[in-house]
Amino acid sequence: MRIAYLGPRGTYSEEAALRHASRASETVPFGTIAAVIEAVENGAADQAVVPIENSLEGAVTHTTDLLIHSTDLLIRREIVLPIHHCLLVQTGFGLPLVRVVYSHPQALAQCRGYIAEHLPEAEPVASLSTAGAVKDMGSSARPAAAVTSRRAAEIFGAKIFDHNIEDSASNKTRFVVLARDDAERTGRDKTTICFDFTEDAAGTLHGTLGELATRGINMLKIESRPDKRSLGRYIFLVDIEGHREDGVVREALRGVRDRAALFRVLGSYPRPGNSDGS
Amino acid sequence: MRIAYLGPRGTYSEEAALRHASRASETVPFGTIAAVIEAVENGAADQAVVPIENSLEGAVTHTTDLLIHSTDLLIRREIVLPIHHCLLVQTGFGLPLVRVVYSHPQALAQCRGYIAEHLPEAEPVASLSTAGAVKDMGSSARPAAAVTSRRAAEIFGAKIFDHNIEDSASNKTRFVVLARDDAERTGRDKTTICFDFTEDAAGTLHGTLGELATRGINMLKIESRPDKRSLGRYIFLVDIEGHREDGVVREALRGVRDRAALFRVLGSYPRPGNSDGS
Repeated sequence: MRIAYLGPRGTYSEEAALRHASRASETVPFGTIAAVIEAVENGAADQAVVPIENSLEGAVTHTTDLLIHSTDLLIRREIVLPIHHCLLVQTGFGLPLVRVVYSHPQALAQCRGYIAEHLPEAEPVASLSTAGAVKDMGSSARPAAAVTSRRAAEIFGAKIFDHNIEDSASNKTRFVVLARDDAERTGRDKTTICFDFTEDAAGTLHGTLGELATRGINMLKIESRPDKRSLGRYIFLVDIEGHREDGVVREALRGVRDRAALFRVLGSYPRPGNSDGS
Repeated sequence: MRIAYLGPRGTYSEEAALRHASRASETVPFGTIAAVIEAVENGAADQAVVPIENSLEGAVTHTTDLLIHSTDLLIRREIVLPIHHCLLVQTGFGLPLVRVVYSHPQALAQCRGYIAEHLPEAEPVASLSTAGAVKDMGSSARPAAAVTSRRAAEIFGAKIFDHNIEDSASNKTRFVVLARDDAERTGRDKTTICFDFTEDAAGTLHGTLGELATRGINMLKIESRPDKRSLGRYIFLVDIEGHREDGVVREALRGVRDRAALFRVLGSYPRPGNSDGS
């Protein structure tokens, strides 16, 4: 099986793809989230692994918007990855000499406190990815450091100067695995749906959520995205407990569909166990 | 009165600040959204104008997170600005010769179709702002163009090559004006609140929205943001019709507060008229 992911090699997306892959699988990097999804649509890969949410930054809206507007692929698994950043330093320099620190802007933001304390003289400079930061450090004219994943350090054979340098211990990213089919019923599942309304009268969303609440179906997450046509109109993305083939869920989804304009099931898939760090 | 906004001069944020300003006001640019808000907190300015939502991109999460977590300033007005991009071209070159086009990444994305059609040979390159794109064009070694606001073109004395080059005619940004006090009751108001829950039992959000729906209070917008402590826990940001001093709204807000853990009113302010383009 071929698994497409957001490259380059050494990113957290590759870590998620490797966690998903079996021994017989091949993981293949693509340059954008849209290209990862297209790879499955045009048969270049069987499954796609894309980030959908971070515990500090919120939704990866590029992914949610592609799921809502641009693809028929379904979510068949979710993978929650704890995000631990490492510090690399150019050979021959101690921390006080470092004048520039490279990483993806989000990783730099997540280590802001550590950098202020340990690299007070270093200017933070954006790289295209945490893996790209290792290359940028290598070609830097000034004494440089990089914030990156342990996996990227291993790939580039770089020595890790410090581990777990992120400011918040609760930094996690949720990835979803997309394919032509979602997952079979396991008895401990969740389902992602999206819907919108033609009119925004008082109580429209309230009544729709009532289709879930009155049946005792737990809502795990709700998010609103602009419908891209007019300001103030939204598409709702909701995660609920249960599989779309469970009797009570099927009934509730019928109720939601009847109240909605757009309605789509984006997939049913197992809820992650504690082993996934969720 | 001094009005702080997200600079530099020539950005859409300055346009929103100028629309808000009276003749006696002075508008002052700051480098980040956090700095704009701090300027009011520390008395360097009286009011702050910050972007909060775009009709294509969704919430400006940096602003919403600051409102939820980091400031006691209140929303006292909203301003909806239609976003129209202009094309500037380096003097002496026609479109077919242009090899690079500068702008803020969001503006480049919003004109993707136009650029593909009219500047097929040009490489899109990111600038720090739409105003900064004009400078980047000026110092480009290759024949260059810039996507920017009409105001920035005027400030830099640049000739506008083409108007309204955005792909979607419904591109609007909503700005909010922040101050120590929110607005007086006008009879046609809206109120922004945020809240979260200690437990996520089925129906918690549904019951809370019921406090609004059963009183016939229209919900204009709902958004969820990560609580930044654990993945899967959210803070809800809700816009409703009415002023927090309206009797029925006051009653509903008391009901919401009783069900919530965190609860805050982020301000009551007039709903924009059609003159604001909303």
